[in-house]
Amino acid sequence: MCFLFYLLVRGLRVGADCIVEFCVDRFMEKAESGSVNGSANVLSLDAVRDTLIRLEDTIVFSLIERAKYPINSAMYNESAGLVAGHHGSFIKFFVKRTEALHAQAGRYGSEEENAFFPGSLSCSLVSSRPSTNVLHPVAKIVNLNKDIWDMYINQLLPLITAGGDDGNYALAAAADLACLQAISRRIHYGKFVAEVKFLDDSPEYTRLIRARVCITS
Amino acid sequence: MCFLFYLLVRGLRVGADCIVEFCVDRFMEKAESGSVNGSANVLSLDAVRDTLIRLEDTIVFSLIERAKYPINSAMYNESAGLVAGHHGSFIKFFVKRTEALHAQAGRYGSEEENAFFPGSLSCSLVSSRPSTNVLHPVAKIVNLNKDIWDMYINQLLPLITAGGDDGNYALAAAADLACLQAISRRIHYGKFVAEVKFLDDSPEYTRLIRARVCITS
Repeated sequence: MCFLFYLLVRGLRVGADCIVEFCVDRFMEKAESGSVNGSANVLSLDAVRDTLIRLEDTIVFSLIERAKYPINSAMYNESAGLVAGHHGSFIKFFVKRTEALHAQAGRYGSEEENAFFPGSLSCSLVSSRPSTNVLHPVAKIVNLNKDIWDMYINQLLPLITAGGDDGNYALAAAADLACLQAISRRIHYGKFVAEVKFLDDSPEYTRLIRARVCITS
Repeated sequence: MCFLFYLLVRGLRVGADCIVEFCVDRFMEKAESGSVNGSANVLSLDAVRDTLIRLEDTIVFSLIERAKYPINSAMYNESAGLVAGHHGSFIKFFVKRTEALHAQAGRYGSEEENAFFPGSLSCSLVSSRPSTNVLHPVAKIVNLNKDIWDMYINQLLPLITAGGDDGNYALAAAADLACLQAISRRIHYGKFVAEVKFLDDSPEYTRLIRARVCITS
């Protein structure tokens, strides 16, 4: 389990600066409008804590699934030329195309979802439901996925997989994507944690935000 | 865990007739050629048993993940019209498009993988590796996914999910697909079980195949 804690701690550290920026932006907007997001009060610290635990279970499950395949290093090689007509690595081809499909299916309409390649997304083909957003709109610009991607591919993956290449690139890439999405969802859930903590003690967090104090726990 | 056993037992029952047909076809081919598939001897009962256990873990993990979302019945409604420009249910749109992408990534070159919509697959864009097939070619025509689909959507899903609709269709569909693929892989692994048992005692299984005896365990 040590790598999971390493991962989460590192993820939170990577995110610390961005979360502070988000808090500052959020506070400024609130100060201008004189109100918080109307639906934010559906959050509670207990609900957020339950969600965090469930998200960590998902990370553990997905890492176990990925560990069933060897590292298959060729998948991550930008110049391996594994996919006909596609420049770049197999894993980028797989993740970009999957995210484009998931965008068509409306995945990124959820506040909990952040794409790894937001510039490659298709428009949603699914009619939107009435919004139940609880975060301030500026939260959407906080996206740490580039750091998560680099950490997962370069540091975490070699720790959880055996060496070798079994040629099961599509299956291994699907397992990689499940890991990346689970880690991303958990780390970005920090935005909900920030929101619920802010609402729980607005005067104190307002003071900390004004002082630009970095809070990582 | 009872639903898992129910699922597997039912899956094996559904598959029994097809597996017998496969065994008959396989035996006839062997009788004609006088030889078994050259690479089949890489199989062992211990290796198959280990794989079966791992595949069942994957089913349990994937069902737990799906159970985090409510049933979202609209996803399975053929006439709900959730996806602009697409006739049929949201789940069929999602699974067909995902399978087409996975086919491009070479997923269905593996003997362990069977598509739910084999008529909608794209060509692989990934250059093939040297074949390491261990099953007789006729095994590829055994595909029980229509029965697995019906059982999963109509019987299993209502058992593992709460009622209601949270609108997270893309996430729930991704979780559905993970369940369907895991169940399909486990049930179709029966082909490897059949192969290794046949090789372990060819005279006895030859007698059973000639008598068309159904073997489900």
